[in-house]
Amino acid sequence: MADSTGEFAFIDWLRRRTPVAGRTLIGPGDDAALLDWAGGANCIATTDMLLEGSCFILADAGPRRVGRKAMSVNLSDIAAMAGRPIAALVSVGLPRHGGRALAEELYLGMREVADAFDTAIVGGDTNSWDGPLVVSVTILGEATPRGVVRRSGARPGDWLMVTGPLGGSILGKHLDFTPRVREALQLHEAAPLRAMIDVSDGLAADVNHICEESGGGAVLYAEAIPITDAARGMNDGRSPLEHALGDGEDFELVFAVAPEDGCKLVDTQPVAGVTLTKIGEFVVEKGLWLDENGIRRTLAPNGYVHAID
Amino acid sequence: MADSTGEFAFIDWLRRRTPVAGRTLIGPGDDAALLDWAGGANCIATTDMLLEGSCFILADAGPRRVGRKAMSVNLSDIAAMAGRPIAALVSVGLPRHGGRALAEELYLGMREVADAFDTAIVGGDTNSWDGPLVVSVTILGEATPRGVVRRSGARPGDWLMVTGPLGGSILGKHLDFTPRVREALQLHEAAPLRAMIDVSDGLAADVNHICEESGGGAVLYAEAIPITDAARGMNDGRSPLEHALGDGEDFELVFAVAPEDGCKLVDTQPVAGVTLTKIGEFVVEKGLWLDENGIRRTLAPNGYVHAID
Repeated sequence: MADSTGEFAFIDWLRRRTPVAGRTLIGPGDDAALLDWAGGANCIATTDMLLEGSCFILADAGPRRVGRKAMSVNLSDIAAMAGRPIAALVSVGLPRHGGRALAEELYLGMREVADAFDTAIVGGDTNSWDGPLVVSVTILGEATPRGVVRRSGARPGDWLMVTGPLGGSILGKHLDFTPRVREALQLHEAAPLRAMIDVSDGLAADVNHICEESGGGAVLYAEAIPITDAARGMNDGRSPLEHALGDGEDFELVFAVAPEDGCKLVDTQPVAGVTLTKIGEFVVEKGLWLDENGIRRTLAPNGYVHAID
Repeated sequence: MADSTGEFAFIDWLRRRTPVAGRTLIGPGDDAALLDWAGGANCIATTDMLLEGSCFILADAGPRRVGRKAMSVNLSDIAAMAGRPIAALVSVGLPRHGGRALAEELYLGMREVADAFDTAIVGGDTNSWDGPLVVSVTILGEATPRGVVRRSGARPGDWLMVTGPLGGSILGKHLDFTPRVREALQLHEAAPLRAMIDVSDGLAADVNHICEESGGGAVLYAEAIPITDAARGMNDGRSPLEHALGDGEDFELVFAVAPEDGCKLVDTQPVAGVTLTKIGEFVVEKGLWLDENGIRRTLAPNGYVHAID
């Protein structure tokens, strides 16, 4: 789900009109839907659309990286459910001039990522029009025997943890990140994950989604939040921490685990290639706070840290 | 799959790069993909994107009819496989001004059709941008115990049949058609269907798809092709028959059956609400012909009837 004005209000409106019933185990409002399939199986499904000029600048990124991103953002949603991806469908709206060459590059970029995650591109729809490039990907997957991880299972006292450093993705990572599909599956094997989301809207916003769905609040520890070198190098008047809290499209995973499981994960670091870091705790009281040197201030979902309450 | 310049060439390019292997039972190039799912189940998946100005004129159609069409074209692809739809995912790119009201109308239109076919809208992605309206729908379904019907199973001597009259859909039917989901399931119960496609590109083009996939040709009987009143009333220099052969987006089903099954279907008319009509035969020789009063002429996939060979 991309971050756009009014999107969350519209999703709320949608959810009120979308009963979870019949074959729908999880409907709109999580990282992906979960369907009850025949034969005792299940189907995880998610979709994300990238729009030229809004989600990427084609001249800067080039079509191959756009293809990679279109596939990766969807795989990241499957990862956020701790699911295993299986297949992808791709719809594109191509500009009339140069559309064929663009389509091939786009497809090759998508294939690079899809192949790396054993995801077959099984179908799609190709259109030409007078507008800019539009790419919509849907990925289908399945849950492991451990089931999916929702946004709604965090409990007071749970540790909030993250798979990697945050902030400044606009400098490149938003196009070139690796979706945390393998890491999510390893994590879910290593400990029972109670809630999880991928950082697409920004750390504060995405932790806030967990809070809203789980019915509670969160305290984040400023000193503990891992920050990227990219965020540290940005010289735009916002601090590295503000970038880590507010920037979107890091595509790391934020998850909640019981404290004893959190301890174990920090000590054993069971996931190759990433450092699991405790960044906060889930609390009973609804809201979002940033704890900095023992001083607790209100944190807005957009990452803005309020003056002392 | 919408009809756009170069689309078929690009799909061929895609297919050469998309091995049917692993979980993919049917990949790109049919009306929908078929996946091998856990527990002996299967998953049919299809996607179609509608672009403002290219696939619809928003000011003429209104957002609710666009929503209905976006859902219906995808359900028509599930019907063409004789599948049963289960769930839909929807991605939209909304113009910034008035996007919320537009989104609600669009969604209500989609829900009307989805509800009528027991299809749950389980997820999606909502974006705002400076471009025109874009709607991409993916539908997931499953095959009945009879399996899916592909484009590739027609055999020489098979009858080619259609579920309803064709032509002139631009006058309204392209927005307001009812996808032949129920009819396809009833047909598939009534007789073994060897090949099927929905008429989206135009009768000649879609019969040509069956020919190419099945490895043969087809003769259509001009006198037998049912023609809509809309096509008969068009006064644009093209005959009603030319409209029936060449116009797209009728969303009737064209299918191939063994002659004895075709006879039975014509005699018993087992599908409520539609008249099943024999319009031609599948033949060994590759190509497409129109037989008019016993004179056989070459028929181009775009519906153009050549001078006598």
